[in-house]
Amino acid sequence: MPRPTRRMQPLDLTGAIISDPFWRPWLEANRHASIPHIYEMCQRTGRLDALRLQWKPGDPNPPHIFWESDLAKWLEAASYTLATHPDHALDHRVDWVIGLLAGAQQPDGYLNVHYTVVEPGKRWTNLRDCHEMYCAGHLIEAGVAHFRATGKRSLLDIVCRYADHIDATFGPGKRAGYCGHEEIELALVKLHHATGQERYVRLAEYFINERGKKPYLYDIEAAARGDAKPDWATPEYRQSHLPVREQKEIVGHAVRAMYLACGMADVAAETGDATLLAACRRLWESATNRKMYVTGALGARHHGEAFGENLELPNESAYAETCAAIGLVLFAHRLLQIEADGRYADVMERALYNGVLCGMSRDGQKYFYVNPLASAGGHHRQEFFDCACCPPNIARLLASLGRYVASADAGGLYVHLYASGEIRAEIGGREVALRTRTLYPWGGFTAIALAMTAPAAFALRLRIPGWCRKHKIAVNGKAVAAKVVRGYASIRRRWQSGDCVTLDFQMPVERVAAHPAAADDVGRVALQRGPVVYCLEQGDNKAPVRSILLPDKAPLAARFDKELLGGCVVIEGAGLAPDLGPWKGRLYQPLRDAAKPKRVKFRAVPYFLWDNREPGAMTVWLPRA
Amino acid sequence: MPRPTRRMQPLDLTGAIISDPFWRPWLEANRHASIPHIYEMCQRTGRLDALRLQWKPGDPNPPHIFWESDLAKWLEAASYTLATHPDHALDHRVDWVIGLLAGAQQPDGYLNVHYTVVEPGKRWTNLRDCHEMYCAGHLIEAGVAHFRATGKRSLLDIVCRYADHIDATFGPGKRAGYCGHEEIELALVKLHHATGQERYVRLAEYFINERGKKPYLYDIEAAARGDAKPDWATPEYRQSHLPVREQKEIVGHAVRAMYLACGMADVAAETGDATLLAACRRLWESATNRKMYVTGALGARHHGEAFGENLELPNESAYAETCAAIGLVLFAHRLLQIEADGRYADVMERALYNGVLCGMSRDGQKYFYVNPLASAGGHHRQEFFDCACCPPNIARLLASLGRYVASADAGGLYVHLYASGEIRAEIGGREVALRTRTLYPWGGFTAIALAMTAPAAFALRLRIPGWCRKHKIAVNGKAVAAKVVRGYASIRRRWQSGDCVTLDFQMPVERVAAHPAAADDVGRVALQRGPVVYCLEQGDNKAPVRSILLPDKAPLAARFDKELLGGCVVIEGAGLAPDLGPWKGRLYQPLRDAAKPKRVKFRAVPYFLWDNREPGAMTVWLPRA
Repeated sequence: MPRPTRRMQPLDLTGAIISDPFWRPWLEANRHASIPHIYEMCQRTGRLDALRLQWKPGDPNPPHIFWESDLAKWLEAASYTLATHPDHALDHRVDWVIGLLAGAQQPDGYLNVHYTVVEPGKRWTNLRDCHEMYCAGHLIEAGVAHFRATGKRSLLDIVCRYADHIDATFGPGKRAGYCGHEEIELALVKLHHATGQERYVRLAEYFINERGKKPYLYDIEAAARGDAKPDWATPEYRQSHLPVREQKEIVGHAVRAMYLACGMADVAAETGDATLLAACRRLWESATNRKMYVTGALGARHHGEAFGENLELPNESAYAETCAAIGLVLFAHRLLQIEADGRYADVMERALYNGVLCGMSRDGQKYFYVNPLASAGGHHRQEFFDCACCPPNIARLLASLGRYVASADAGGLYVHLYASGEIRAEIGGREVALRTRTLYPWGGFTAIALAMTAPAAFALRLRIPGWCRKHKIAVNGKAVAAKVVRGYASIRRRWQSGDCVTLDFQMPVERVAAHPAAADDVGRVALQRGPVVYCLEQGDNKAPVRSILLPDKAPLAARFDKELLGGCVVIEGAGLAPDLGPWKGRLYQPLRDAAKPKRVKFRAVPYFLWDNREPGAMTVWLPRA
Repeated sequence: MPRPTRRMQPLDLTGAIISDPFWRPWLEANRHASIPHIYEMCQRTGRLDALRLQWKPGDPNPPHIFWESDLAKWLEAASYTLATHPDHALDHRVDWVIGLLAGAQQPDGYLNVHYTVVEPGKRWTNLRDCHEMYCAGHLIEAGVAHFRATGKRSLLDIVCRYADHIDATFGPGKRAGYCGHEEIELALVKLHHATGQERYVRLAEYFINERGKKPYLYDIEAAARGDAKPDWATPEYRQSHLPVREQKEIVGHAVRAMYLACGMADVAAETGDATLLAACRRLWESATNRKMYVTGALGARHHGEAFGENLELPNESAYAETCAAIGLVLFAHRLLQIEADGRYADVMERALYNGVLCGMSRDGQKYFYVNPLASAGGHHRQEFFDCACCPPNIARLLASLGRYVASADAGGLYVHLYASGEIRAEIGGREVALRTRTLYPWGGFTAIALAMTAPAAFALRLRIPGWCRKHKIAVNGKAVAAKVVRGYASIRRRWQSGDCVTLDFQMPVERVAAHPAAADDVGRVALQRGPVVYCLEQGDNKAPVRSILLPDKAPLAARFDKELLGGCVVIEGAGLAPDLGPWKGRLYQPLRDAAKPKRVKFRAVPYFLWDNREPGAMTVWLPRA
């Protein structure tokens, strides 16, 4: 197999430890509230008990085809937590769940409770709809995470046996197949990294290459099942309408599309397959330049939880599933490692601070599955969902957030995200520690102190965010003019312990416009400051927030409100709101009869914090006046 | 029974003959294209053959529960046509269909093919979902129309037998019941008018009073069927959540809601029931002041074809079913007769010229079921629908358009709609003829010449449309200052043959604003001139129409384009369109980086004419600049 083609590598699980005033409450809510809460919900809903294989026909609550995926993501999240915050009780709980999984695994390695007790004998008969390999993928990711976090092989061995069973079942000269919900592809590449087994990459590559081939596998499969009903979804829904290298546009179910894209990027990176990487780039452009919300959310349509047409980005009816924004973070992170281009990190940051973070309540106990950019006031987070993919997905991302902070290559270190804490990496065989203090995302100032046992020459490559127009960099107090190449200011020098780099990013409030073909945003602006996208919530504003107009020239002030939701920067300004007097009893009237709008003060809060207080209307895009 | 409480009465079917340059093409398309086309579609889809009762289990294409309603509306449309345009072949065809219906009627009067051949023995077992009385209502309307148009009793006798069967089955001391899809209530009042039988009004009143009572009929009915599944829709969907007099808001399926409201108004008018009339007024306010599109369309949501919340009026995803706008015309017309208030005529006119008329293509052969106020370019009329309620509904409304033009009371004549043609009415025992020539809706000038055998004193009450700010009235060339009372300028005098009244309505282009709580229209205006709402179609404009901004001060010119779609007034002006240059490869950017928009000429066409030329994007509400 050719050499992997990544230009950089993420750090180990403990390579970056985040102790940041911004992130700490989120990470603690995740660790102390969300992860225990998700466990409890898995228990309460029968997801755990199902692993005992005691369900019998006629019993209530039959184990669902994708219950394992929720448990797997919980195990993955818990494992990451164990890496950074050793916790005996949690370790014990994880071992106990792994024990249940071990008991549910069949002698041949197969591991899906539904097809063991509810529909025995029907394994792998409906790859199109039934998520077996999707669940397997999440179990594999959990196995790898658990192994990396704890060094224990218990779950890794289980998932290797399952992966081997799948490898023995599918592939050239075996059964043809690929899963209707992508996920196993990226998981198999992780398993290869953890085990050194190249055949896992080959299997991932097989699944990717098989996808979309004609004759269409899912038709053959349906005929074999004697299922004469037409496919309930289009092949585009599951990205199997064309071989992946022929796909020019991101289509269908947004989470599926992102997971496929991740798997493609992983296989391309491992194999050096330029055609596959080119396909990734096309899907990236399609997703991020034509189908992404300003919050980094993906998926315009409720129907099929799917991407819409180019620039189809309705706000109130946006689907924008939390998992899809997470998928975009994962995809961006992969392309960033391969290409070392800050535009991937820009999107990663946008999705993380906005589209992902809004998926969890401030207290870590409620979740958004759907993330509209406007609401009449009826949209709220829930404790859990029957289809519970999002809660453990946020949990695992937040628990592994350190992985996204920085990467290393042979010549130095890349810093992608700014968070106070410590980064430890081996550069040129030498351990280097960076201690970061930052005001991010509320302020643009960052100081990085270096520590190492002996001076070392390497490049420190600091990301200059795409949203930043002016920045200053100094080393030990002296301004340096570091050239920005593909989004990173590179400072190559002989570093000594105690060296201090300071970064200052100008962070004004920006009015952001959307491409004029995004019809729902025409004549409107969104407010953004640094990486954070803002919204107006009704509770902060007297005038109905969706009726407030924002004059182009109205000054906008950013102010840190230390009382608000643990402290955040709010944006304040004066907009125009209608005088409702002349509207009494009228639904339409000539514009000239509507009174001139009145000046009203308004306050905008970070979008990711909305719906954490009293319920009410919300809007991101403000009409210009 | 108390005396009916209507303040005016519509004229007979032939009381107003329309020979108007605006309407003629529509009425001819309806008569020559649409009515034959719908007949052919009914034939081709098996709706006619089904009446032979030859379907056997195992045969394809089982007769559907609501096929009779399509045929009935076709019969109604054809009958109205026979009244104004005698046509031997059509008369023969109508008789032939009536013969088929006679053959399908059961000895006890029952008449629904589905429950005769597909599910015999299941009659009236699912009033909630199965539309039997809905179909009966349309058959009754057809029977009354046919009788009034031709004097023949053939269909009237059939529907009387059916109505008698229903009357013998349901009511106090008999079975409890009311239909999940309202319609029979208004039809029974028509049948009362045609036959003089009061019990039909009593039966309508019974159905209306029974609606929404607890214990909930449809639960009892479901239990009796052994149907343990929860109701697939909410009681609100079919307006059976509360007794009608307790309903404060218009909710649920918009067509159902309108037909119920019509039935309520009819019964209230017949019985003088003030509580029922008050309920009608509440539903009217709710529908027209809080849930109506500027086009007079109703029903914001695809889900349930339903009303949304107050001011929930999304444009691109509007449902706005053609039948619901027709239902609004019917409801408005009823309240207008009862209350003699021009605001009902204003809404009737708005819905007719915009929400209804756009439902049919210019050539009368294609139909919109759904009428969004914005489109990315993919929404187009179709030849027919499996659920084909809309095409014959437009056909029957257009074929009876004369009924909506004027009404009479003891002291005079009301003119509601302006169309060139002739009105003949009996006023105070004397026949009076009005010959109208008008530029409406393209111009505000109307001349009305009176003719009668001898001078007569009566009031001519001419509607001054709500959209009109300035008008002039003259009699025989001399200005008169007629006081406008509840929307009508009343000229009471001793009229002589040859008297001529002229009306001149100022008809500038208006920018119309929506109530600021209609979030989707905030910062936007719609263009309206006279009763006609405009839209921008892509084919007329170079700049993407959904990106064009309209400065508040930009002059707007109206011009009659005699080449366009048979001749219509277009609105032309200069708007602002984005320079797409700085957007290449970008989806979002700071507003200050987006180039200043450029001046672009644009052309708007009447909304009701859209999608009659090359397909493309369309928008009604333009963002202000």
